[in-house]
Amino acid sequence: MSDLTTVGKKITKRDAPLKVTGGALYIQDMKIPGMLYGGILYGQYAHAKILKLDTTRAERLPGVMAVITAADVPNDFRFGIMKDNPPLKGGRVRSTRDEIAAVAAVSAEIAAAALELIEVEYEELPGIFDPLEAMKEGAPLVHEEMKSNILKMPWKLVCGDVEAAKKESAYVVSDTFRTQWVTHCCLGTSGCIAVFDTGNNLTMYSNTQIPSLAQNDYIEALAAFGLKGRRVRIIQCTIGGGFGSKLDTYAYEYIAILLAMKTRKPVKFIFSREEEFFATSPRQCSITKISQGCDKDGRLTFREVEMVLDNGAYTSWGATTPSVMMMPISSLYKVPNIKYVAQCVYTNNTYSQAMRGYGNPQATFAIESSLDQLAEKAGLDPYELRFRNANEPGELTPQNFQITSCGMKECMAEVVKRLDWKGKKGNGNGRGVGMASLIHVGGGARVYKSDGCGTIIKMDDRGKVDVMTGATEIGQGSETVIAQIVAEVLGVNIDDINVINNDTDVCPWDVGAHASRTTFVAGNSALGAAQKIREKMLAVAAQNMGEAPASMDIKNGVVFSMQDKEKSMPLSKVLRKVHYSPGGKMFTAEHFYDPPNENFNKEFKGNLSVSYAYGVHGVEVEVDRETGQVKILNYIAAHDVGKAINPMLLEGQIYGGGLMGIGYALGETMIYEKGHLKNGNFLDYKMPTAKDVPPVQAVIVETDEQAGPFGAKGIGEPGLVPTAPAIANAIYDAVGVRIRDLPITPEKVLRALQEKAQADTGRSGA
Amino acid sequence: MSDLTTVGKKITKRDAPLKVTGGALYIQDMKIPGMLYGGILYGQYAHAKILKLDTTRAERLPGVMAVITAADVPNDFRFGIMKDNPPLKGGRVRSTRDEIAAVAAVSAEIAAAALELIEVEYEELPGIFDPLEAMKEGAPLVHEEMKSNILKMPWKLVCGDVEAAKKESAYVVSDTFRTQWVTHCCLGTSGCIAVFDTGNNLTMYSNTQIPSLAQNDYIEALAAFGLKGRRVRIIQCTIGGGFGSKLDTYAYEYIAILLAMKTRKPVKFIFSREEEFFATSPRQCSITKISQGCDKDGRLTFREVEMVLDNGAYTSWGATTPSVMMMPISSLYKVPNIKYVAQCVYTNNTYSQAMRGYGNPQATFAIESSLDQLAEKAGLDPYELRFRNANEPGELTPQNFQITSCGMKECMAEVVKRLDWKGKKGNGNGRGVGMASLIHVGGGARVYKSDGCGTIIKMDDRGKVDVMTGATEIGQGSETVIAQIVAEVLGVNIDDINVINNDTDVCPWDVGAHASRTTFVAGNSALGAAQKIREKMLAVAAQNMGEAPASMDIKNGVVFSMQDKEKSMPLSKVLRKVHYSPGGKMFTAEHFYDPPNENFNKEFKGNLSVSYAYGVHGVEVEVDRETGQVKILNYIAAHDVGKAINPMLLEGQIYGGGLMGIGYALGETMIYEKGHLKNGNFLDYKMPTAKDVPPVQAVIVETDEQAGPFGAKGIGEPGLVPTAPAIANAIYDAVGVRIRDLPITPEKVLRALQEKAQADTGRSGA
Repeated sequence: MSDLTTVGKKITKRDAPLKVTGGALYIQDMKIPGMLYGGILYGQYAHAKILKLDTTRAERLPGVMAVITAADVPNDFRFGIMKDNPPLKGGRVRSTRDEIAAVAAVSAEIAAAALELIEVEYEELPGIFDPLEAMKEGAPLVHEEMKSNILKMPWKLVCGDVEAAKKESAYVVSDTFRTQWVTHCCLGTSGCIAVFDTGNNLTMYSNTQIPSLAQNDYIEALAAFGLKGRRVRIIQCTIGGGFGSKLDTYAYEYIAILLAMKTRKPVKFIFSREEEFFATSPRQCSITKISQGCDKDGRLTFREVEMVLDNGAYTSWGATTPSVMMMPISSLYKVPNIKYVAQCVYTNNTYSQAMRGYGNPQATFAIESSLDQLAEKAGLDPYELRFRNANEPGELTPQNFQITSCGMKECMAEVVKRLDWKGKKGNGNGRGVGMASLIHVGGGARVYKSDGCGTIIKMDDRGKVDVMTGATEIGQGSETVIAQIVAEVLGVNIDDINVINNDTDVCPWDVGAHASRTTFVAGNSALGAAQKIREKMLAVAAQNMGEAPASMDIKNGVVFSMQDKEKSMPLSKVLRKVHYSPGGKMFTAEHFYDPPNENFNKEFKGNLSVSYAYGVHGVEVEVDRETGQVKILNYIAAHDVGKAINPMLLEGQIYGGGLMGIGYALGETMIYEKGHLKNGNFLDYKMPTAKDVPPVQAVIVETDEQAGPFGAKGIGEPGLVPTAPAIANAIYDAVGVRIRDLPITPEKVLRALQEKAQADTGRSGA
Repeated sequence: MSDLTTVGKKITKRDAPLKVTGGALYIQDMKIPGMLYGGILYGQYAHAKILKLDTTRAERLPGVMAVITAADVPNDFRFGIMKDNPPLKGGRVRSTRDEIAAVAAVSAEIAAAALELIEVEYEELPGIFDPLEAMKEGAPLVHEEMKSNILKMPWKLVCGDVEAAKKESAYVVSDTFRTQWVTHCCLGTSGCIAVFDTGNNLTMYSNTQIPSLAQNDYIEALAAFGLKGRRVRIIQCTIGGGFGSKLDTYAYEYIAILLAMKTRKPVKFIFSREEEFFATSPRQCSITKISQGCDKDGRLTFREVEMVLDNGAYTSWGATTPSVMMMPISSLYKVPNIKYVAQCVYTNNTYSQAMRGYGNPQATFAIESSLDQLAEKAGLDPYELRFRNANEPGELTPQNFQITSCGMKECMAEVVKRLDWKGKKGNGNGRGVGMASLIHVGGGARVYKSDGCGTIIKMDDRGKVDVMTGATEIGQGSETVIAQIVAEVLGVNIDDINVINNDTDVCPWDVGAHASRTTFVAGNSALGAAQKIREKMLAVAAQNMGEAPASMDIKNGVVFSMQDKEKSMPLSKVLRKVHYSPGGKMFTAEHFYDPPNENFNKEFKGNLSVSYAYGVHGVEVEVDRETGQVKILNYIAAHDVGKAINPMLLEGQIYGGGLMGIGYALGETMIYEKGHLKNGNFLDYKMPTAKDVPPVQAVIVETDEQAGPFGAKGIGEPGLVPTAPAIANAIYDAVGVRIRDLPITPEKVLRALQEKAQADTGRSGA
């Protein structure tokens, strides 16, 4: 592997030139002849009865081809993991984003005008917006038929004996931490085009991150809608960011299908930026009560976590994030005894979805903030506490995660060194340092029955390589990484590699772009397919040169004998030789890789991933005591990535993740008042932009994961996981205040400083 | 095979509903964001020097993005099989269709206006329009550097000893026959869109019939143009007819590439109907001198043919049609001694291309007209002569064609019976009957180094089957036939089959939609891939049911034991079982089928095809002695097809071929005067339309070709091969005049009747 030619190199992201020159085709750019434009009318109340819904005037507007309401949804069809979400809501609205009517018209302008002509009368009902309130006996029910606002999803993990461990602990801390709603801020807003053929087979142009699963969802919808179409095709346009937001299907997609079905025309939906804010599903907010303890030597003894999650009015993947929260809770650092309980609660708020990290940032904020509290109580440097309990290769964690490669201590050492931890810690001059670690799945995550991805490779007889992969490109660079892997194995120029990754008709099955799994799973799949072709090519060339295949290699499109480099043959000649021989062949191969990881058992235990990614972030901040402003002076993000297939893209993931984490830590929040979003635009919602980028050092630690392609493991999500607690810990180090709820706004810091000053005064005055 | 469920059934053509409802997307419908529109300026003379070519005014027209001339073609690039055709002609024009300048503009209207602003001055040169004249010493040279107008393509086939056979023949006839230019009359006119990505890789939206070969052509062009792009992708839109017209690349395609390269924008060309007539390449016209003889028992002794073909000013596949003409000349009926010589001659006329039958109609017109003359001379019923010499299974023809299945005699018997041959023959009442036979390749045709086609099949875990085939759909129904074959093998509903056949990025290599090879070659390829998946599925199901795979079958999506039909399992369950097992798999398979046929050796001998298709057409006509009008009263087209995969589509091919043949026989001709086309539109060019359809009976004779998929052989072209001579023979039977040059217009019949009357009068008066 020492002489890799393509893997390990900083190769330009393949889609970058097209994107920056305006040539990339997003869903916004797509036009199908005869296409109609859709629009959705949302309920104006968080909870209300619909007394009247009259679409007559809208239907009469010239250019309007169809208006539909809940009455047009056949068979009371509902979607989502709990099947609690009708594409159009009838009778009652349960959140301000409830879709109650939709139109298709010959232009977007007419569609918008038609929405204005729909007459609705509501009777407002009392809403429930606090999950703790919603859990109480007698609280108004969001879904009356369910008898309770608490979802029947009992998340509970027990490892060892927490109660016994508590008693034996030398030090114990308990506290409660809260996190907020944040949204993905994809620069490409959501959209789709639904097109039926004459056999009612559906083609959906889509931004989805889960083409194979969306295909299943739509097939179910077609059946429910009484259509005989047996085939669903999903074509993904260039996707302007995913971050988990496209990991589930949305009401607008089913509405597009219904309108296309009714009008027999293609129907397009494109969300405005405002819709993108309020009608897509954010990261769920959480309330986390955590206790941790250690013995007198600073060895962690137990971790106990109780969590309440606001589910909103309907259920999407947000409700399943506890499955990932369990991971850091059970396995970040060595903790022998674990108890974790989480409850998801219906409210009349927006409902939540997957977002980069999938619950891990929420859990890690609580864990790592609490660890600093524990270190203080135990009189240990927080780094010392962490180092003593750090994960190591070969470990089997309480949740039965088999840790293979693990560079946590190396990452920690990098942070300590690069941040000058010892020099900066505890100076109390308004500047401070903090750190936090992360564990994340780095070798797939078996959350569905299959965690696999397929690849088909075909070569033409000039050396062009077409790679059909199940992997979805959402901007993360999977296309480039897969091309690098295939080019390396086949010994060809990367420009000869063409990656096809956006059409379910030709791309094999894949569970989706989530769980940081693409480089690992799709990479292994591509690797396997490429190796099959390589073997065929070597066999033919070896036979032609009178050599053993094992003594042959391919570089730069030439097959050669490693013993005698004079013996060589251009690859294209090998290919044509085979093609033009009697009974000719073309080189094609297929490989389906499903990692040997495990679904959780009923106790939520099992080796979720084949390998785990680690990282440690360290940050130095300066806190302005006058304004509460937090300034990041230095940021070290050290990640154990197994192997960097493309260090440039990998650093991009770390920078991007870090910045997203900083937004989460210091500024971003969706402000809901009684279910109404108050800051649903980029002016009022404070996403960090280029000018906010702090000095970040991305440090790559390579641990050569044996199961990974060329040693790699996943890195898509980790970059944002430990950011918020690292910053919170640094603020505490700087000014002695602990902020327990995100985001850490200047207002909160200032208030905490004032309270601390009062308390200090009170104490000193006593 | 007795219990076939899908193969052998009259299943609706898959693309028909979309086409008739307007949903099919032709190249005309395609729009790429930022796309420019191209236009071409053609020379106005058949032969002239270009004295001045000033594009200044055109360039200044607002909206014009580029104007190019020959000076913009790098490296004197030329295309075509003789590399004698520059995309833009400089210095001299050699035919009225010569492209001398081209523009790209923001609209088609501006492009057209810009062409008007290009100033050209010519000095007209003497042209040469008759190939016989062009062959003479001292004739003006079309390409001076070539020193002669006769192409260096010496077509010569010699089998046995024709001179000796002549001497031993009891009866010999000699005559000369001529055929005309006809065009394909595709209802979708030609067009393309050339799109470069930022790496100068080319995507071409195209109507081509030869995606893999066009890809090679374009790659050569990119290299010549100095572009570094390594990848070419061809996307075929819905093709509105091919018939051979799209078997080669055209100048406009290279011009689109040049303009896209210059403007860095997608560039679209769409031919007007007039351009389609004059700027695409027709079936080449021919002058055929033929002699045939037989012994006293009517056994054919020899066949000698000399042919001159008008090549036009440049060279495309028209020049290679003698390779197919050899087939009927050597192997239609049993003829022991053969001599064939053909010469292609440059003129200042339009240049010719492939067209359905690829030379076979021209040769068969001469052979079968001459055979009737020979029968008359030998005093035999033409049917008798034919039957005595008919081909039979097991024969090895003089050109070394191995005849496997052959239903020629069965076809002849059907024609005789259905036409009431004995009752109608020789009645001399202005009505007459005629017949003619055909041989054509029915099992591929190895004209390129590979005659193969690849198929990739993937199944999802619900039973949907995606079939990526190299086969091109040009309206002939290959998509449907391939779907039927795959559905039959996999035992699934045909609606679960999705055929992908229009994108070189995902479709495997194929030599192209020509030579009636698609059902046979692509069908065998699809069959092979499907069988591989079937075997995998049966193995899994058998293992699950404790049965042997050989005792299992699949029908209607259910796998069952043939011994105990209670033992069964839905296919989708088998698929999911495999998918969701540890190390899960999806069913995918690939098969490349290259038939075991042979390229000709240097003497033009070899088994060109794995099987040969036969057919006999019989026709009853009525000739109006007053007007010369020929009316078809009854038309029997009997074809040995091996096995009809889809009898409805097969009949469609026979009807369509027959009607095209009738147009060729009775009306169609491109009228050129000194190189200028005089009737280049559907008003003046008399293509038969729906109202001209005569009563045709398509008779399917099944001979179960062992090498064919389910016994099938090719049928795309045969329908038009023997039509013209059958009609000519019937006219002779009706009114005693022999028309030797196509088309047989009323004028020609009337003139012949008048000449005959004069001759008869002369004779009776003498």
